[in-house]
Amino acid sequence: MSSGGHHTTEPDRLWSVDEHLEDVLTTVRPLDPIELQLLDAQGCVLVEDVMVPLSLPPFDNSSMDGYAVRVGDVSGASEEFPAALEVVGDVAAGAADLIHVGPGQAARIMTGAPLPPGAETVVPVEWTDGGLGEGPVSGMRARSLSPEGATGQVRVYRPAEARAHVRAKGSDVKAGDLALETGTVLGPPQIALLAAIGRGTVRVRPRPRVVVLSTGSELVQPDEQLRNGQIYDSNSFALTAAARDAGAIAYRVGAVADDADVLRSTIEDQLVRADLMVTTGGVSVGAYDVVKEALSHVGDEDVPGGGVEFRKLAMQPGKPQGFGTIGREHIPLLALPGNPVSSYVSFELFVRPAIRTLMGLQDVHRPTARATLAAEKALSSPKGRRQFLRGTYADGEVTPVGGSGSHLIAALAQADALIVVPEDVESVAPGDEVEVVLLG
Amino acid sequence: MSSGGHHTTEPDRLWSVDEHLEDVLTTVRPLDPIELQLLDAQGCVLVEDVMVPLSLPPFDNSSMDGYAVRVGDVSGASEEFPAALEVVGDVAAGAADLIHVGPGQAARIMTGAPLPPGAETVVPVEWTDGGLGEGPVSGMRARSLSPEGATGQVRVYRPAEARAHVRAKGSDVKAGDLALETGTVLGPPQIALLAAIGRGTVRVRPRPRVVVLSTGSELVQPDEQLRNGQIYDSNSFALTAAARDAGAIAYRVGAVADDADVLRSTIEDQLVRADLMVTTGGVSVGAYDVVKEALSHVGDEDVPGGGVEFRKLAMQPGKPQGFGTIGREHIPLLALPGNPVSSYVSFELFVRPAIRTLMGLQDVHRPTARATLAAEKALSSPKGRRQFLRGTYADGEVTPVGGSGSHLIAALAQADALIVVPEDVESVAPGDEVEVVLLG
Repeated sequence: MSSGGHHTTEPDRLWSVDEHLEDVLTTVRPLDPIELQLLDAQGCVLVEDVMVPLSLPPFDNSSMDGYAVRVGDVSGASEEFPAALEVVGDVAAGAADLIHVGPGQAARIMTGAPLPPGAETVVPVEWTDGGLGEGPVSGMRARSLSPEGATGQVRVYRPAEARAHVRAKGSDVKAGDLALETGTVLGPPQIALLAAIGRGTVRVRPRPRVVVLSTGSELVQPDEQLRNGQIYDSNSFALTAAARDAGAIAYRVGAVADDADVLRSTIEDQLVRADLMVTTGGVSVGAYDVVKEALSHVGDEDVPGGGVEFRKLAMQPGKPQGFGTIGREHIPLLALPGNPVSSYVSFELFVRPAIRTLMGLQDVHRPTARATLAAEKALSSPKGRRQFLRGTYADGEVTPVGGSGSHLIAALAQADALIVVPEDVESVAPGDEVEVVLLG
Repeated sequence: MSSGGHHTTEPDRLWSVDEHLEDVLTTVRPLDPIELQLLDAQGCVLVEDVMVPLSLPPFDNSSMDGYAVRVGDVSGASEEFPAALEVVGDVAAGAADLIHVGPGQAARIMTGAPLPPGAETVVPVEWTDGGLGEGPVSGMRARSLSPEGATGQVRVYRPAEARAHVRAKGSDVKAGDLALETGTVLGPPQIALLAAIGRGTVRVRPRPRVVVLSTGSELVQPDEQLRNGQIYDSNSFALTAAARDAGAIAYRVGAVADDADVLRSTIEDQLVRADLMVTTGGVSVGAYDVVKEALSHVGDEDVPGGGVEFRKLAMQPGKPQGFGTIGREHIPLLALPGNPVSSYVSFELFVRPAIRTLMGLQDVHRPTARATLAAEKALSSPKGRRQFLRGTYADGEVTPVGGSGSHLIAALAQADALIVVPEDVESVAPGDEVEVVLLG
């Protein structure tokens, strides 16, 4: 483990964005699966092949409100010559004990109710007189108001083929089928299917718990009074929101002063609820950059394999970065730079993919697109650095907003894309094609 | 208010999808704004023009770790002929009482720290010997380990222009500027800006509270034992998940049996925590369709303007629908059909836009796209009905999954798009262009 600055073994080695990202993504492992209640598993990745334990529908049932009858009893029925059948009772949805439908008989049946024994088909209520004897009706009267509807006689005005308006047992899924395979992300329709086959809980990777803390003695909570030399803490708010947006359960610790002991004990305190820790600030070459200083003594020092490494990346913004694992549980920690734009861009590039890797998602990166640069003048970019500028993207064009300064929060709040200028490009002219990261 | 079935004044009038949607969207009004803590406002719509109360940065500050000096003292400095300056102390980020930098002097300064009086520019530490007298360094030693770094002499190897590496007060935003305008959706970068200008709370429309209940005596909770004629309740799970997905705080009540009194009292109970209510089932023409029956007597009957109307829509699936407002507060209620696919499609078409209207969002609908139908045979669709089939969409092509049956949950769980077949189209051939709703 290195401690950065002039103590590092390779002080001048620049890591590429891709090397750093690879280090993060090969270190971070998907969280162990747990069994969660269905609605708690929303947005999570399934970690089992879910088999269908019972066929859906579990029994033949009616797809209409109508009458369950025998085919022969209604063949040839017409408005002029209706079939008159004896109504032997109701079959409501959920009915367990079913009446038998014999020749010349009909059972009034509701949508979803089991096809009763003896019945071969269903005629919709609109093809009947509903038992009222006054021609076709548009529906049934409520059972509670007209209990006599379950008795008497019904006239049927149209024939029905065998099993018309009947949803066959197993026509949706069959027992033993694969309902959902491991790796499926559980959205509302997948939750519908799991509930429908009777699964109240499922085995998924949980949402990672991400602890966000900012560092800096200059930081003050919003709504408090600023004194000379102070600014408001925005990073801990922005990154907590961004972590949630990525799918995490995020805890904002807030700002910690530039004191290595306080920072160390805060991090040790928070470790218990962290699957991932994110800090901002204190990672550069200054004498008060305490994140570096603190992170060589966090957690259980007797356990090998831990340690956070501080490095310089060939990118702008976001040159200074720390990454490693801390404590007995080897919790991954990303130490981001403190400038607001630097920390946000670093989050998008490294922390968001780490969170999504912890979730077990396959697709951990933001979508990208090719876009034509719509700008009044050329963009310049430092040689050897991958630059990420803020822009707005629409219809294949991207327009830069604000400058390259890593303190320009107002412009960031207008942007919906990052414009990527590769390491070997020093200037991008209006009309040139560039890659953009869509911030969605 | 009508009660549907053969009691309705226009029993056979078919409402178009667009008419029903318009009724919903002109009835539902955005929720009243409230003041929320910044992180509670994530994803919400701002309902104030937020002005910048103080310039950002609030003071000239250093963008580098280095030394604050006078320009004249380092002009002409080189590695061969460095400028030797007296280090008069440290200026850390957050420092309130600043030392004065006189001729021949330097203050060691950290990123974000105020430019001290007398100093005109900043030289990065990498352009100096860091006070060690051994040529250029790559960083400072930690203050806690090497307090002597704030004293002694520093050699500067390069000149700096006036205000180099200085971020000017107000260079991000100026006091009195518009930070964010009303209507802005608050994502992480907007939250960053609000925190940075000191706003701990903001005025937004809150997330709507949506109560979801399914109806049907056949419905059983997942993980319980099914008896004859019973099925598992999936709608209440699916729609609760879908409501959250749309931005709501969703409460799943679960399944209520087909008993009008029980349903009525459940709805009355739940009204207190609902900005929108969604029911499934019990809206068709059956004798046990108690949602219709119950909803004529909910809430305060003395208040005019309420009432839920049941109607038939020219769509498949989803023909029977109820919509209106209930109770003293005129809470909107959408009564969806009970078949799982019907209720889900109805949610996407009507409830999701209602939720997003309550949130005050401008963009309430799912995105749509034109796609080429990739299918082995033509799709047929009932004349006069707008049909919504399930499909998978990729690269401008949509492939149907499953059939048109409204009980086919397994196919729904594979779909990521709805294929729209207009009212006047009865057949769509492979290769034809269709509209698709992207369920993303």
